[in-house]
Amino acid sequence: MAVLVVGSVGLDNVETPTGSRIKTLGGACTYFATAASLYDRISIVGVVGTDFPQEHLEFLQSRNIDLTGLQIVEGKTFFWAGRYGQDLDDAQTLDTQLNVFADFHPIVPPELAQTEYVFLANIDPDLQIEVLQQVPRPRLVALDSMNYWITSKRESLARAFSMVDVLLLNATEVKMYAQEPNLITAAQKILAEGPKAIIIKRGEFGAMLLTRGEELGESLFLTPAYPVSRVVDPTGAGDTFAAGFMGYLARNGELSLEALRRAVVHGTVVASFTVEDFSVDRLRTLTPEEIQGRYDHLRYLTHFEPLDDIQCQRFRHWIH
Amino acid sequence: MAVLVVGSVGLDNVETPTGSRIKTLGGACTYFATAASLYDRISIVGVVGTDFPQEHLEFLQSRNIDLTGLQIVEGKTFFWAGRYGQDLDDAQTLDTQLNVFADFHPIVPPELAQTEYVFLANIDPDLQIEVLQQVPRPRLVALDSMNYWITSKRESLARAFSMVDVLLLNATEVKMYAQEPNLITAAQKILAEGPKAIIIKRGEFGAMLLTRGEELGESLFLTPAYPVSRVVDPTGAGDTFAAGFMGYLARNGELSLEALRRAVVHGTVVASFTVEDFSVDRLRTLTPEEIQGRYDHLRYLTHFEPLDDIQCQRFRHWIH
Repeated sequence: MAVLVVGSVGLDNVETPTGSRIKTLGGACTYFATAASLYDRISIVGVVGTDFPQEHLEFLQSRNIDLTGLQIVEGKTFFWAGRYGQDLDDAQTLDTQLNVFADFHPIVPPELAQTEYVFLANIDPDLQIEVLQQVPRPRLVALDSMNYWITSKRESLARAFSMVDVLLLNATEVKMYAQEPNLITAAQKILAEGPKAIIIKRGEFGAMLLTRGEELGESLFLTPAYPVSRVVDPTGAGDTFAAGFMGYLARNGELSLEALRRAVVHGTVVASFTVEDFSVDRLRTLTPEEIQGRYDHLRYLTHFEPLDDIQCQRFRHWIH
Repeated sequence: MAVLVVGSVGLDNVETPTGSRIKTLGGACTYFATAASLYDRISIVGVVGTDFPQEHLEFLQSRNIDLTGLQIVEGKTFFWAGRYGQDLDDAQTLDTQLNVFADFHPIVPPELAQTEYVFLANIDPDLQIEVLQQVPRPRLVALDSMNYWITSKRESLARAFSMVDVLLLNATEVKMYAQEPNLITAAQKILAEGPKAIIIKRGEFGAMLLTRGEELGESLFLTPAYPVSRVVDPTGAGDTFAAGFMGYLARNGELSLEALRRAVVHGTVVASFTVEDFSVDRLRTLTPEEIQGRYDHLRYLTHFEPLDDIQCQRFRHWIH
């Protein structure tokens, strides 16, 4: 099955304690597509300017990424500049130039309207809704967002939340949106607004998956992050987490709770590679075997006492 | 088997966003002993003043805790006052009065010198060493410390580290002691100084266990924290983490890597109960069945794909 992603394709200036890069390939959509192309066929819906380097288009094509939904518009490509401090936490944004992104409206090519897996990367929730209006019956839609939209477009965001299956947010965003300091209670409040599942990304501390409803049950899953000994550039970690998650699900076609849990682990593993180099550079050489290696290692890292099926059933509807 | 613990027994004033308590039962030794008494027979080595309420002594005795090593000295009991902010992170210390603790030297009663499991709670590393000189051949010694001793008594602390089997520290202390920003690299540097294992406590984000040497292998274990929906007072979380860890090991008598991993999970589970009320109040009613319930639940919460023995062996010596 294939995955459609809508989001930013851009050029980034990035400074981290390890070094810096000028006008490097960036954007949530780029990170997602590059990583997800290790799992399945990916189509991009986005926009770049006429200044977007040909080599980047060729790179994306070399990954078998479908660019029929990528508009190339007279003008300059979306640009972001950011700096990370010693702790490699949230970046300080130094500059954002929307450029051709300012007037962007996503157009899903008719031949892609039947794509079964859709990822709405972090963009204006009104644009996320526009995409959903063009894909009538996807099997799974996941959505990422950020604090900016929670503050400035809360109503649109709430509407988008109600239209998707899975939310990917970080812990701060979850608490901010729900206006609730306890993370799990906050996530449960958001789940009550529509989505079947919420994934809370906690950076170096891993991720949580909360589900609701008859199909998946009211369940909770916790995974630590795959430990990385040298973080070079955290940009794109969240987008490639989503790529591991969606890529795994699309490749396997199964949407059970068990599949979602494994998909979350693929997310943390793919993100762990991304942060080892600038831009999408680590992903250029990354192989499915390396992903499987860390996935299996994380099984061992978290292993302390196996559980049988009866015990699994017992805890399936017990959150706390 | 039995556990000997040396550390502070005190009275605390505590303020948290939920409420406050005046002169409540506190001290690392108290928290540890109360929690560990759910697993095994515990002996305390410590000191209190003549003002220490009889009801607290009776409470400890009611838990079958051996108080022959608890000195009762003319004067006032150790006192600590602290305040937690909204995020329930590190407490702000408002007052510390050492009182009878100022001149304390631990005396291990001769009949306890053969105790096989020893926990050195967070006190002056010189006192921790004095204890070790009185217990000739314990099976397992674990040590807790804090940033204060890293700064003010580094040499003594290094000597203490070289004499024990397991260190329990938080992430900040590990990085501070090793003068190394990467947590795993920092832990590996400390392990090279003597201990066989280091447990890194990460509060709401769980814990890591790193081991070295032929017996345990160079291995890493990661567990998320057991999620708590309402944290009332985080005081004693670290001490009761140690209690779950040591209590489980002492009760079972096994010191394999597998046993250490399960013991770490017992640590996070016991700590998760402690923070649900002030002082040791939640521990007063806590049962072994409740501990086992959360332990089993955490097995489910982290479960995504089982691992067989051959795979376990493959990853045993692979840290990253």
